[in-house]
Order: sequence, then structure tokens, then C-alpha cells
Amino acid sequence: MDLTPYRLTAEPYYHPTGHEIALYEHAYAHRLPLVLKGPTGCGKTRFVEYMAWRLGKPLITLACNEDMTAADLVGRYLLDAEGTRWHDGPLTTAVRHGAICYLDEVVEARQDTTVVIHPLTDSRRILPLDKKGEIVAAHPDFQLVVSYNPGYQSHSKSLKQSTRQRFAALEFDYPAAEAEADIVAHEAGIDRALAMRLVDIAHQSRRLRERGLDEGISTRMLIYAGVLIRDGLPPVDSCRMAMTAPITDDPDMQRALGAILESAF
Amino acid sequence: MDLTPYRLTAEPYYHPTGHEIALYEHAYAHRLPLVLKGPTGCGKTRFVEYMAWRLGKPLITLACNEDMTAADLVGRYLLDAEGTRWHDGPLTTAVRHGAICYLDEVVEARQDTTVVIHPLTDSRRILPLDKKGEIVAAHPDFQLVVSYNPGYQSHSKSLKQSTRQRFAALEFDYPAAEAEADIVAHEAGIDRALAMRLVDIAHQSRRLRERGLDEGISTRMLIYAGVLIRDGLPPVDSCRMAMTAPITDDPDMQRALGAILESAF
Amino acid sequence: MDLTPYRLTAEPYYHPTGHEIALYEHAYAHRLPLVLKGPTGCGKTRFVEYMAWRLGKPLITLACNEDMTAADLVGRYLLDAEGTRWHDGPLTTAVRHGAICYLDEVVEARQDTTVVIHPLTDSRRILPLDKKGEIVAAHPDFQLVVSYNPGYQSHSKSLKQSTRQRFAALEFDYPAAEAEADIVAHEAGIDRALAMRLVDIAHQSRRLRERGLDEGISTRMLIYAGVLIRDGLPPVDSCRMAMTAPITDDPDMQRALGAILESAF
Amino acid sequence: MDLTPYRLTAEPYYHPTGHEIALYEHAYAHRLPLVLKGPTGCGKTRFVEYMAWRLGKPLITLACNEDMTAADLVGRYLLDAEGTRWHDGPLTTAVRHGAICYLDEVVEARQDTTVVIHPLTDSRRILPLDKKGEIVAAHPDFQLVVSYNPGYQSHSKSLKQSTRQRFAALEFDYPAAEAEADIVAHEAGIDRALAMRLVDIAHQSRRLRERGLDEGISTRMLIYAGVLIRDGLPPVDSCRMAMTAPITDDPDMQRALGAILESAF
Amino acid sequence: MDLTPYRLTAEPYYHPTGHEIALYEHAYAHRLPLVLKGPTGCGKTRFVEYMAWRLGKPLITLACNEDMTAADLVGRYLLDAEGTRWHDGPLTTAVRHGAICYLDEVVEARQDTTVVIHPLTDSRRILPLDKKGEIVAAHPDFQLVVSYNPGYQSHSKSLKQSTRQRFAALEFDYPAAEAEADIVAHEAGIDRALAMRLVDIAHQSRRLRERGLDEGISTRMLIYAGVLIRDGLPPVDSCRMAMTAPITDDPDMQRALGAILESAF
Amino acid sequence: MDLTPYRLTAEPYYHPTGHEIALYEHAYAHRLPLVLKGPTGCGKTRFVEYMAWRLGKPLITLACNEDMTAADLVGRYLLDAEGTRWHDGPLTTAVRHGAICYLDEVVEARQDTTVVIHPLTDSRRILPLDKKGEIVAAHPDFQLVVSYNPGYQSHSKSLKQSTRQRFAALEFDYPAAEAEADIVAHEAGIDRALAMRLVDIAHQSRRLRERGLDEGISTRMLIYAGVLIRDGLPPVDSCRMAMTAPITDDPDMQRALGAILESAF
Repeated sequence: MDLTPYRLTAEPYYHPTGHEIALYEHAYAHRLPLVLKGPTGCGKTRFVEYMAWRLGKPLITLACNEDMTAADLVGRYLLDAEGTRWHDGPLTTAVRHGAICYLDEVVEARQDTTVVIHPLTDSRRILPLDKKGEIVAAHPDFQLVVSYNPGYQSHSKSLKQSTRQRFAALEFDYPAAEAEADIVAHEAGIDRALAMRLVDIAHQSRRLRERGLDEGISTRMLIYAGVLIRDGLPPVDSCRMAMTAPITDDPDMQRALGAILESAF
Repeated sequence: MDLTPYRLTAEPYYHPTGHEIALYEHAYAHRLPLVLKGPTGCGKTRFVEYMAWRLGKPLITLACNEDMTAADLVGRYLLDAEGTRWHDGPLTTAVRHGAICYLDEVVEARQDTTVVIHPLTDSRRILPLDKKGEIVAAHPDFQLVVSYNPGYQSHSKSLKQSTRQRFAALEFDYPAAEAEADIVAHEAGIDRALAMRLVDIAHQSRRLRERGLDEGISTRMLIYAGVLIRDGLPPVDSCRMAMTAPITDDPDMQRALGAILESAF
Repeated sequence: MDLTPYRLTAEPYYHPTGHEIALYEHAYAHRLPLVLKGPTGCGKTRFVEYMAWRLGKPLITLACNEDMTAADLVGRYLLDAEGTRWHDGPLTTAVRHGAICYLDEVVEARQDTTVVIHPLTDSRRILPLDKKGEIVAAHPDFQLVVSYNPGYQSHSKSLKQSTRQRFAALEFDYPAAEAEADIVAHEAGIDRALAMRLVDIAHQSRRLRERGLDEGISTRMLIYAGVLIRDGLPPVDSCRMAMTAPITDDPDMQRALGAILESAF
Repeated sequence: MDLTPYRLTAEPYYHPTGHEIALYEHAYAHRLPLVLKGPTGCGKTRFVEYMAWRLGKPLITLACNEDMTAADLVGRYLLDAEGTRWHDGPLTTAVRHGAICYLDEVVEARQDTTVVIHPLTDSRRILPLDKKGEIVAAHPDFQLVVSYNPGYQSHSKSLKQSTRQRFAALEFDYPAAEAEADIVAHEAGIDRALAMRLVDIAHQSRRLRERGLDEGISTRMLIYAGVLIRDGLPPVDSCRMAMTAPITDDPDMQRALGAILESAF
Repeated sequence: MDLTPYRLTAEPYYHPTGHEIALYEHAYAHRLPLVLKGPTGCGKTRFVEYMAWRLGKPLITLACNEDMTAADLVGRYLLDAEGTRWHDGPLTTAVRHGAICYLDEVVEARQDTTVVIHPLTDSRRILPLDKKGEIVAAHPDFQLVVSYNPGYQSHSKSLKQSTRQRFAALEFDYPAAEAEADIVAHEAGIDRALAMRLVDIAHQSRRLRERGLDEGISTRMLIYAGVLIRDGLPPVDSCRMAMTAPITDDPDMQRALGAILESAF
Repeated sequence: MDLTPYRLTAEPYYHPTGHEIALYEHAYAHRLPLVLKGPTGCGKTRFVEYMAWRLGKPLITLACNEDMTAADLVGRYLLDAEGTRWHDGPLTTAVRHGAICYLDEVVEARQDTTVVIHPLTDSRRILPLDKKGEIVAAHPDFQLVVSYNPGYQSHSKSLKQSTRQRFAALEFDYPAAEAEADIVAHEAGIDRALAMRLVDIAHQSRRLRERGLDEGISTRMLIYAGVLIRDGLPPVDSCRMAMTAPITDDPDMQRALGAILESAF
């Protein structure tokens, strides 16, 4: 199995917000399973990509969802001309050949998916392929990383204690204003003053969460808006299209966000 | 893979209602994922067709529904004489060969369908085919466009924040009266005065939404009625058959709509 | 594909109740999708059969139900000696070869079934076979007709606005007394006076709907009763067996219907 | 297809309780679809067997249940050495080759099962095999008979009006005391006085229905008890084992039934 | 088909608690379907084994559950090198070749499973294999026995009247104290005085049912405790491990049971 | 079948907290089925591994979940070049060849999974493979061990009495403070004073359960924290990352745990 497609070929842009790089390195040194907690679009996926690149390890990313089965992770028998043949799933590939396996939004997964990772996350570090009758011992380079957003997970969708207690955790939030402006300026290719103005709008939107907005404007949306402004679109149009129009369908919230935009430009 | 069947062979009739054509072109220039928000029958699908024709790109349209699986988008193994063989789904075809992929009524889709598009809608622009062990990098021409009607989506069916924040948004509404009359006159082949009378009926029906009508009469229905009148059917019969009879089963609303028709002709 | 089995070989008996034949012909002339609304057993299916015979078009009828899948309409891959092979479903057959396709009780169908018909019911008139990667352009003779009973559909089972607005509508009800008696006399082979008495019983039963009867006695049941009477069974026995016994399990309603019968003969 | 296994080889014992034999014969003469309504164990199944024997027609009986699919009735493609091949289901066999098809407890069936019978129960008398693309015209001998117990069907499980109105109905109840005693004496091989005593117990139990017993003791249970008494088991033991112990788990009802037994012997 | 594996090779130990052996023999003489009612662990399964041994008949036991399908009982087509081939299920094997078939905890089964047994439990004694188009007439030795625990079945899980009325019933309870002590002494290999003390604890636990314990300590648990005591483990430790620790998770009940243990030794 | 992969190759570290080793040995001597009850991360899995090593038996561990089917335990037919062939599942492997089979978190399993083990857990000690028509008599070395956490199982997920009463039980809790410190010092490679401080934090967190924390910090988390401290990470950072951040998303609990950490170092 060639893991080359899973190796990052260029350094992903990542702007640290604390000493999370050192903490990850400590966890990886002992191959501690890691959970990344934080809101949508704050950079969790990018951070894992950056760490995989920094550590020189291949990265296999899986977006969890409620229709994903254990077999989608572990593998299954498929029928070909010689009968049924076993195909490793992406988790098995990571375990067997030594990749970092990143399960994004793990709380969305069904229970059989989360139970599958239990023997990988204690001192055994094994993945039993029950259907195949094989026990795969994890490659020394293998590490499991999962993420979720603690802000809007429902009660029916939260990690079971028996899963939680198998992980060390890193907590993420949106970067501080100065850092976020650096990121937006760099990624959108705009000047820092404009980036700072966009960040200021985002901060105002995040305060609307107390008044009923599901979630504030994320760093990713600021970058989209910055790109459109750099491209010549008027700032208000750019911000409406990339930031306020997508974020909510609520007319009151739309009005509140519109007022923020108008006072900003 | 030949995308010819997905290329529009004639310019679709489209009457702009604002500067949405320019906004789309800006978004396409950066391949920003785009969500079109607006009521039923206001022209979202026609707009995407027009833009695909204008940009000279093939268009793959998929009507989302709650029984659609991720495999219906991404592809699956099918059994043929030589065993199982992979068949790309329509989304994979668009990603691999460079089409605009339009997911109509995306809120109807199951979560596994929406999660599939996440890595396509951030800086990665990749589509992992987990079951095949392949990561498809998006063709430079590929763009993802989705639509939904914010007016009557239920709480259980709305876009997750982690999906929303990946899109720029264009908001649609029914065209202004003058523009709508132009459209109806052109598409139904009737004179503008008659078209204006039909539009006026539609406006009255849309005001009934405050009194319990699910949704007002759409532009498409006006065109149906116009075609029947041009064909010689009496105007009231035409409007009843094409506009008021289909739109509701509620006897009170039927009576209110009947009164509008009678005062109109 | 030979559509001969779907051609009607004899003129179906149909007694018009208004100018519905002309309205249908206008709709067919423009291939407008048509929805027939009306109570059980009032003649919607017979009307479509009559129109198909009158227009000389083959008719493919499908009774919708909540277990019907999109694949049941559109087609699927089946395995045979040479591997999997595509089999057109009945809707695809109608679209490709030019039949009228009639979806009876369309509100019973699952959403994926109704979404399938969307691109067939706007200006595109296409049926995308997503699993096969083919877009079937509708044959010029193809028309889509659907029906439902607005009287007892539940809230969870009603047509979505985005579906409704794609159809012109014809509203049906039981025929007027004189016409209904003509139909019963003709179909059951009884004299008109007896038929009128049966129709009178039906009218009385339909008034019971205000007192809790789900639905009144239909024309079809009158014909059954007439056939049994013609055959020598006493009128009260015939009416009980064909009309009042099947229509309800409620003891109070049974008693009320029994009283109507006794006073009638 | 050889229907011999579905032909009754001996006359089933049946004791008429009214003129139901003549009514059935009238209905069969016109092949009217028939619904038999009545409580558990009152003889509906036996009656259909008797009529099939009397009319000299094969009988295909299917016990409906909520896990039965339309394919279980109609047929399906099965894979054999030459690929997939169509296998007629039992309903299709009856329709094609001319049997009486009896769907026992039809209200237990899922909707797709009941919808399948619609085109068989109006003037069309056809069974469309949508998956096979064949329309089977019913054999002249084919008749559809269904049954249900109106006493304890729940609201979620009742026949839809659009199904009900396709049937003529025969109503059954437990036989009158004299007739029931004849049946029990004949079937259990006991003298008529003992049979009358058993019938008397059944009557008392059926009155308990007003006090909460789900259903009274059926004719079938009386026969079981009679057989055990004839075999030498004490009457109270026989009645407890065959009649009162199986019928309820409720301690109060058990006590009430025990008291009835003790006073009877 | 060789039923040898289903024949009991040694006499199972069974201690009668009444004249249930004679009652069973009477029922078997007429092949009456039999339902055994009684609490968990009171010896229903052992009784059926004993009767099968005594009557010299093979016994096929099936533990019912809500995921068991009709096909699990009746059989199905399986694919082998020559295509699909029918495999009899365990019920079909019993019916065809003459075994006693015992469905343990029948109320756990889905409806399609219970409906399957209807034609086996009236005078027809047939098993229709709908999918195979075969009607299997029951072997003369075949008898159907089912069991359930009336104490804790929920309302959603109880036998339908149409099923109940097809069975004769035997009611079981825990054996009387003297008999239960004999059984425990015999099976655990301990002296009768110790057995009596264990039985006394069980009786006290069964009285706790009125105070919220789901079910009392069963005979089987007494035997486990006896075996551990005979093996040298202290009586309190043995009773806690085999009797009180497994039976409940409720802290109050655990304390009450602990007090009973301490006062007993 | 070679069970070598299921044999433990090194003695697992296990620190007894009472005489549970002797109790297990008594149970194993009689092959009594055993249930281990206790909170998450208190060492149940490790204990079974230790006992398997001590007794020299292979161990097959299965993490139960609600999507696990009986076939996942027992086995199924798989298609290969010669047609379908039976593959023993992991439970069948253990039963046939003599392993200890450990079902972790058995309350998560579906009912069909738990019913499967019934005939293995009474005097029969057999595993019927219904689909294969085989009855596997348990190997003399086979023992069944299951576990669950009585603390947070919901009412819908608890062991049925008919299952409970088949097991002897061992109750586990977190080790006493002294023992737990020994374990943490040994496993994390830290000095005993530091281990004692970590244990003290855990004790404080477990008291928070009365104030709403789902579960206290487990021994496993203390070991993770100890490893990070040994590695040079500051104690507060280590404890936050390995102990308090993963355990809860509740801001109040996070604050309470933060205060505990700050006062500890």
C-alpha cells in the first residue's frame, strides 16, 4: 500500500495561537490519541494538516457522518472475478501502514464507528478486523486524532465517557484579533488594515451569538470576503455575499448583520 | 468521460433582476462554492443554467432528496462480468472532468451527502473516494453550487453551520413586477398587458402568505396560464387550472384565490 | 421497446361531468404536467384511460406507495449472465418511448420519487439517470399525470410546494346525480330508476361525512351493488354487501347506513 | 405452473351460519373482490377453504404481516447459474393461472402490499409487474379475497378508503349457540351436551370483553378443550389448558375465568 | 436431513412440580400447539428438553429476538457455485422431518415470525414456503412449543389474540420450596440443608419484587451459588457473586439483598 | 483454526484490588459465565487480559455496539469463487476452539446479539448456528465474560433479567488511593509522590459527580498525565490536556476542575 497520495506536498499555512504545536508534539511522542475541540472554521483541520506536514507523516482524513458504518472505516469484503476479497478501509490503512488518521466531527458518527476505535486508544493499540479474523497491531507511526465542535452538539450526539476518557484534548477557539488579521491578510492577499476591519465585523457577529445567532462569522468567511474585495467587488457586496448572507436565514439576524456591515464601510 | 451531454446547446432565456451575473462571475473566478437562496419557482435553476452556458462550462444538476446516499453522488462498485468495477457518481464526474455541479434543494439531502462536499469546499478542493482509496483533486473548472428555499425549510432540515460557512451566498426573490411581466410575455408568447394582469394576480396571491397560504403563485405558473390563454382557453379557466387549483387544497384559500381571479377578468 | 401492451384496445366507458376533456386536451397540446385532484372512486383513473385512448397514446400507470423507490420508477442495474445490465423503469420507458405516465396517489410516494419528476416538469423535460450517467430527453408524446385525494391526505403526506407549482390541475368530484345514475345504469346493466335509487343512497351516505364517516359511497360501489341486484340478490342484501358493509367498521355509522338502506327499499 | 398443491383434496367441514355461501357465490360469479370481516377464530379461513373446494378452484393463502413486501406477493428476480431470472410470487401465480388468492389479516400488511392489489380490484383486473415490465391480465377464475378483524385493529392499521371501496364485504361473527355446539361436537368428537357446556363457557368469556378481556374464547379453543376431555383429561384441567390459560395474562381476568370454569363443572 | 444432532443423548434432570408431564403428553398426543408461560429460570427450557427425551423426539430450539426474520425460521435461497439454492430453515426442518420445534421467548419475535406459524397451528398443519412456492405438510411427529414470561412483557410485546388462540397453555412458576431444595441439592452437589438455606434466600428475594426488584433469584442462580460453596468459596461470597450481584444494579436493592445474605449465614 | 494471535505474549500489568483473582478462578473452574460491572477505565478489560494470561487461555475481545448483529458474532456465509462458504464469527471461533470470549459493554448490543449467548450460558453450553444447521458444543476451555458500566446505562439499555440470571458477577470500582497511586507510578514511570497527587485530583473530580459531572477522571487519564509530566510538560498543562479538557464540555465543570488543578500544583 502506497501512502504517497496521503502525504502533504507543501507546507500548509498555519498561524499558531498558543503553544498547541508543542503540546501536539508531546502527545505524538507517546502516540496519545488526541481530540481537538473548537468552533466551526477556527482552523482545526488546517492544524492537523500542518502537524502531519511538520512531523513528515501521511494524513488520512475522514469526515464523520451518521450514515458512516464501521465497515467504511475498517474495510469489507468486495466481490471480484476470484470471489470475495478483503479491502482495507481508510482507518485500517492508517493503522497498518503508519499514517495519522483524522476523524473530523466525530460526534456525527454512529456508535459502531466510535467503538471501533476503542482498542486502538488504550495500551493495546490494536485494530481487530472481526469479519476477517485478523488483529492488526498499529504501526509505530500511527496516531488517532478526532475533532468536534462542543458548541452545538446536541445531547443525543455527544461523545460517550468511555470514548472521551481515551483521549488527551486540545481546545481551540478563533485566533486573537491580531493573529486573525494576519491570517486573513495572508490568505486573501489584502492589506492588514482591511483585514482588521473584516476581523472587527466578525467579532461583532460573534457577539450576536448571545442574541440567537447559531455561530459567528468564521475566519474562512473573512478570507472569502477579502478575496472578493481584492478582486474589485465593493466591500459591502463582498461581505454580504461571503459573510452575512450565508450565515443565517433569520430576518432579524440578517438586519442586525446588515447594520454592522453598513457602519463598517 | 465525455461531458458533451452536460453542455447546454442553446442560450437559456434569463432576465436578470440585479447584478447577480457579475456576482456569480466573481465567485466563479475564485471557484468559491455558492449557495442560491430563494423561493420555489423564482428562477434559481434557470440562472445556473444560464451561467453555465455563459461561462461555457458543462453543468451537472442533481435534485437532492432524503433517500439520496453519498454513494449516489460519489460512485460505487458495480458488479460486471469481470467482477466489481468502480463507477464514478455524478459529483465525481464533475470534480474529475471539470463541470459545474448544482445540488438543487440541498437541505433535503441526508447528512452523509452534505459531509461529502466539505473537503471540496475549503482550500483543499479534493474529493476523497474512501471506498476506492482515491483522492480526486478537483479539475480547475469545477465549481460547486447548491440551492435551497429558506422560506419553508423545517428546523430538522436546515444547513449545518459547518456546511453554511463554506459557501458564498446569492439571495433570490421573485422578479420585480415589470421584469416578471417581461419574462411571462416572452416565455408564454402573450402580449405584455395580459402578462401584467397575470403578474398582478400573483402579487395578490403572495400577500395571502400572511393569511396561511404556503407559498404564492410562481413565475412558472404564470407562464403556464399564459400559454393556455394564448391557446384559446378562457382566462379564468386558464388561471384556475394553471395557478389557483394546483397551489392549495385549503377551501378558504381556494375561495380567496377564486375571488381574486374573478375581479381580475 | 414495444409499448403495445400499454395501448388501450377498446374505448373505456367515460361519462364527462364538465369540459374536463377539452381542458385535458389543451394541457396535452403543451404537454403541461397535470395533477388530478378528487375523492376515491370518482373516476380519475378511468378519465386518464379514456384520454389516453382518445389521444391514441400508450398509458403507463403506477400506483404510488411509501415503499416505492426512485429506482422503481427510473430503473436499475440487474445482474445477468454477462454482469450487471441497466433495465429502464416504467417512468423511463414512458419518457424514452412516448407514453402518458400516470402516477396514481402520488402523495403516498416517498420524496425521492417525487423529486425524480422535477426535471421532467419544467422547461427542461429531461430525466437524468444519475446511476447510469445518462440524460434522457422526453419523447414529444410523453406527458406526466399524477393524482391524489385532497380530502384525507395527512399533513405529513402532502405535495411539497416545489412539486405542486410544476403542475396544472383538474379538480374532480362525484358526478351530478343524473350523470351518476347514467353511469351506474350503463356499467351495472340495470334500469335507470333503480340506478337513481342507488345514487340517492350514495348521496345520503356522503352527507354522513359531516358526522364522522371517512368517505361516502363511491360510484364504483353503486355499480357493484347494481350488478348483484341484476343477478337476483335482494336489493338490501346487495347494498349491504357492496356498499355499507365495506365502507366502515364503526357500529354507529353501520346503524345509520342500515337505516338509510331500509328506508330506500 | 401446476396448481395441484393448492387444490383442496377433501371437503373441509363447514357449518353455515346464514346465507353466506350464496352471497359468496354471487360475488364469485362476478369475480367481485371480497373482504371477510370478523373476530379471531370464528371460521373465516375455513369458510374460504370450503368455498374454494365447493367451487373447485385452487386456493393460495397468504398470512399478511408488516414485514411482507410487495415483492413477496408479486415476485422478484433471483440469481441462478444463468444470471437473474424472474420468479412469480404467490399472488402472481394466482392471477396468471386462476386461483382464489386469500390475504389473511390484510390490515397487518404494509401499504405497498395493499396498493399492489388496486389494479386487480377494479374493472382493469390486471397485475402490473413493474420490475419485469409485464402486465398480467387476470385469469378468468382468479378472485381476490381478504380478511381482517375489525375489533382490534388500531387506527394506524386500518384499510384505506381507496382500498375498502374496491371490495364487497361479508360480516362474520361467532356462530349462534346451537350451531357452535354442533361444530364443537363434530370436530372434537364429543357428545352435544358437553359441547353445549363448553359453548356456554365461551359465551360467558365473550361477555368479559366489556370488562377488559381482549377477545372471548373462540370456537377453535372449544374444540381443543373437547379433544382433551374426550382423551380422558378432567374437564376443568382441559378447559384451563385449552381455553382460559392461553387467552390472557391478566390475573383478574384469570380469576374471573377460573370462577366460570368451576361453576360449569 | 439427519436430525441426530437434535436428539438428546442423555436424560435431562427434571423434577416435576405438578402433573405437567401428563398434560404435555395429552397435548402431544393430539399435536396441540403448546405455550409455556412462566418466569425466567423456572425450568421451561429444561422441561421441553425432558419431554423431547421422554417422547424420543428430536428437539430444535430457537431463541426468538426482534431481529429474527421469517426467513431465519423458514429458510432462504443461498448462492452457491450452481446459482441460488434453497436452504430449509430450522422450523422447516422440524416440520418436514418431524421434530419438536421450541421457540423460546416468542414475544420477542417480530410479527412476520409469529404469522408464519399460523397455518401450522390450526387444522391445516402446513407451512407454506411462499418464496419457494412449496407447501410443506407437517410430519406426523412435528409439534410446535413456544414460551414467554408473562411477568415483564411490555404492551408492545405481547402475543396477538389471533396467535394466542391457536395454543393450549401450561403455566409454570418456581418450584415449591421442598422441590426447589431437592433440585438445587441434586444439581449443585450440596447437602439438602444448605440447599434449603439458599432456597430460603431466594424466597426472600422474590418477595422484594413488590418493592421494585424486577425479578427474584431463580433456581439456576441457586445452583451456581451451591457449586461455588461446594468448591470452597465462603457462602456469603458465593451468594453475592452468583445471586445478588448479577440480579440488580439498584443500590437500595443491593443493600436489601446484602442484609438478607448476612442474616442467612 | 490457529488461536495464536489471540494468546497474550507478555504478562499484562495488573494490580489486584481485592480477591477478584481467586473469585475469577473459582468461576472459571466451573466455566460459570461472568459479568464484570464497574465504571469506565477502572481496569475491567485489563483484568480479563490478566486472567487470560494467568490461565494460559486465548482471549477474543469484542466491543459491543448497537450496530453489531448476531451474524457479526456467530458468522455468516460469504461468497467466494466456489460459491457461498461459511465463515465462523469470533464467538463461534472461541466456542469451537476454546478461548475466553469477552464482550465489552454488552448493554450496547442489540437484543439478537444477547439472545445468541443464552444456550451458551446454561447447562447446555451449545451455540446453535441456525443459518448453517449446526450445533457447536462448547470446547471445555471456553468461557464467556461480559462487562458493562451500571452507572450510566439508560433504561432502554440494560440487561434483560433472562440474560442477567445466567451470569455470576464481579463488581469493580476505581482502586483504593494507595493502590491507584502504585498503578499510576508504575505505568507512567513517575515517582509515587507525584502519582499520589494525581490520584488526589481524580478523587476530587469523582466527588463532582454529585454536582453533575458524568463521570470522574479515570486511572487511565492519570497515567496519560503522568507520562506527559515525565516528558517535561508542566504539570498543569499536562493535567489539563490529559485529564480535565477531555472529560467534559460544560463550562461550569471546566471551571471547577481548573480550580482543583490550580490548588494542586
